[in-house]
Amino acid sequence: MKSVFKGDIIHTPTKDKFEIYENSYLIVEDGHVVKITDKLENLYKCYEFYDYSGKIIIPGFVDVHLHAPQYPNRGLGMDKELIPWLNTYTFPEESKYSDLEYSRRVFEEFINALWAEGTTRCSVYSTIFLESTKLLMDMFIASGLGALVGKVNMDRNSAPALIEDSYQSIIETEEFILEFKDVSDLVKPIITPRFIPTCTDMLLTELGKLAIKYNIPVQSHLNENTSEVEWVRELYPESKNYASVYDRFNLFGQTKTIMAHCVYNTDEETELMAKNGVYVAHCPHSNFNLSSGLSPIRKYLNQGVKVGLGSDISGGHTISMPQVMVGAMQTSKMVWLQSNKELAPLTLSEVFFLATKGGGSFFGNVGSFEEGYECDLLVIDVDNLAYLKTLTPEEKLQKFIYEGSRENIIDRFVKGKKVYKPFLINTQLIPNC
Amino acid sequence: MKSVFKGDIIHTPTKDKFEIYENSYLIVEDGHVVKITDKLENLYKCYEFYDYSGKIIIPGFVDVHLHAPQYPNRGLGMDKELIPWLNTYTFPEESKYSDLEYSRRVFEEFINALWAEGTTRCSVYSTIFLESTKLLMDMFIASGLGALVGKVNMDRNSAPALIEDSYQSIIETEEFILEFKDVSDLVKPIITPRFIPTCTDMLLTELGKLAIKYNIPVQSHLNENTSEVEWVRELYPESKNYASVYDRFNLFGQTKTIMAHCVYNTDEETELMAKNGVYVAHCPHSNFNLSSGLSPIRKYLNQGVKVGLGSDISGGHTISMPQVMVGAMQTSKMVWLQSNKELAPLTLSEVFFLATKGGGSFFGNVGSFEEGYECDLLVIDVDNLAYLKTLTPEEKLQKFIYEGSRENIIDRFVKGKKVYKPFLINTQLIPNC
Repeated sequence: MKSVFKGDIIHTPTKDKFEIYENSYLIVEDGHVVKITDKLENLYKCYEFYDYSGKIIIPGFVDVHLHAPQYPNRGLGMDKELIPWLNTYTFPEESKYSDLEYSRRVFEEFINALWAEGTTRCSVYSTIFLESTKLLMDMFIASGLGALVGKVNMDRNSAPALIEDSYQSIIETEEFILEFKDVSDLVKPIITPRFIPTCTDMLLTELGKLAIKYNIPVQSHLNENTSEVEWVRELYPESKNYASVYDRFNLFGQTKTIMAHCVYNTDEETELMAKNGVYVAHCPHSNFNLSSGLSPIRKYLNQGVKVGLGSDISGGHTISMPQVMVGAMQTSKMVWLQSNKELAPLTLSEVFFLATKGGGSFFGNVGSFEEGYECDLLVIDVDNLAYLKTLTPEEKLQKFIYEGSRENIIDRFVKGKKVYKPFLINTQLIPNC
Repeated sequence: MKSVFKGDIIHTPTKDKFEIYENSYLIVEDGHVVKITDKLENLYKCYEFYDYSGKIIIPGFVDVHLHAPQYPNRGLGMDKELIPWLNTYTFPEESKYSDLEYSRRVFEEFINALWAEGTTRCSVYSTIFLESTKLLMDMFIASGLGALVGKVNMDRNSAPALIEDSYQSIIETEEFILEFKDVSDLVKPIITPRFIPTCTDMLLTELGKLAIKYNIPVQSHLNENTSEVEWVRELYPESKNYASVYDRFNLFGQTKTIMAHCVYNTDEETELMAKNGVYVAHCPHSNFNLSSGLSPIRKYLNQGVKVGLGSDISGGHTISMPQVMVGAMQTSKMVWLQSNKELAPLTLSEVFFLATKGGGSFFGNVGSFEEGYECDLLVIDVDNLAYLKTLTPEEKLQKFIYEGSRENIIDRFVKGKKVYKPFLINTQLIPNC
């Protein structure tokens, strides 16, 4: 498939500035970017032509941390900190996913919402339930969106319905990996120990082995909340810190790894992340909502750590990556003030980079329009927000991020292919259950 | 006009909890609440009947701080602190409002947006331009929404096009007051010195006199940003603090007064606010976006200061009061963490109170469904957000605040009267200018 996209093209090959190509052409062959050009050579005139003149064309958004089964809870129960919040709201909801019909109905809404908001790739937690997780995988494959999907592992310290038998957890994880590792180039498994307090040493040991054996990426949570950090310290008093517990079990960069939150990293932990190439999934709204704190992303960037952005549904209340970008800007401004103006606020091009190429690099060559990149793109029309203003392409992007909504996204492509609304459901007609 | 509204009625007579009346009736006579009842007595059966069964009915939102002429700038230029932001983005935009046709077109969009988002009362800054401010007044009166509208005064330290002749500023302000003080019971003038640095002593003196002479309320800015606070200290080295400068000129509670931001109040200033009954207009998104800081609202509430919420368009990027509530919750959670967990986070009922009765009390008996209150109400339908969940009325409200949009507001009433979309314009058909 060979295509040309015409419009005002914006991306961030580096975080420090937007590269903007007004009224230009993006050439795509077999899902990969060939180049951006302001003159369409004859060669490309027979390519499929998408005319988005006057619209902006940006890379699709990458959400590196969210929980599919928590989607029905978004916006509810924002009155607690992490651990009581998990026990009061989250674990009871996650217990429902032994029911495949319930799972299907939630996942339809969930994947439709990702599509609507322009999230073309995500790294997502399912539940402990294998069949439900396989269903989520199948539904992502059917959707045309890209995803890393994890069967959650936890075999201690949780709601009774969510505590797995350790052996079964390991066996099912391997079954899940084998069944899906080579099925789709857009949707793949990721190993997902929930976090240290809910996993025994035996489980962590075996998950580390599976990660290495099949070269599967890893996602988990790190240093989100002071009580959680304290809990890990009590569980592993001999460990230097929280990060080193993951590291000990080969779950910290031995394969590609991403850790959500990182509000309370010690310098030593951050250095280990930089050294091992472990990513931070920065979830600003969740860090606000659960009273976790202000994650010092500038510091991590300065220390050479890779960073992406996560909605963290449903610690975060919104699945919109533009709204997550706003939260990341706001967080960084408060960090700047409180660091005695030493840690500079993130700029808009920087948070845009984090939401595209920054998180995208966890998936491969994703999130940018550089040559050879997989071409995920969104077409944005902000005419309804630009009344009485003639906006530059960069100002259109500012408006979209701060004030836009899913209505401003008029088309979505993943790896060069147009993606339509995945599931045709009419929520109005289905009674609550 | 006598009406009955049936639905799930929620309000906050006190901030500490929601009062919820499921499947009940709100009785309204001549714009004022008579009572809430779960059985409709025969007497009321001939009243106009609005059946909103299954929907929630809440008081209209009150936005106590925003700038009409900055509406086109919302979401743009969020990369500076207060003073450079004013000079780079805000003052150039405000200079345009000598043009009445431009004013009209912006104000149509602005008032429509307030209506759409459910803001039934607001305290709004216009510009220095008298005719444009009169137009805004006329347009609010035509809209059916409630508003306090201020002609901005500034006669020093601003963009040349925005520096008034002091005498003219005073004369025009008095003309504005006389023309509008008795025209409408919903739309009234408010005295609006921009802030201390842009007003000479002579201007402040005369504005204080006008406030008292005509018993007109006052709005301004206080302790938003450290550079601004420092600037005021340099201008008034003999003054105890920023607040006492306003106080010296009879602009600090001598008539009803509201001060925006209050991020950096000293205890002495907060005590003066409590003593003089001066309100805080809390603008959390603006305080994030302009790197101003985290306003310790819990502390002010503890000290007996009255508080309302402001969108602060366009320091704030969103005119949605539910989004402002989310920002207020998030701010208070960070304040809690940073106060060593001494200043408790605001609860949802508290921020809802601030966005309704808290700010509403600046307008009179507004923002609650208690007997005798002016009945501003919104009807909210969150069925599209509640898929697969059976939500209680309070959960519906949570969903609406965190995740809803203008689309979830299906009807709006001000003082008992249904308000329709004020201006019928189609932004798509009007070319940018």
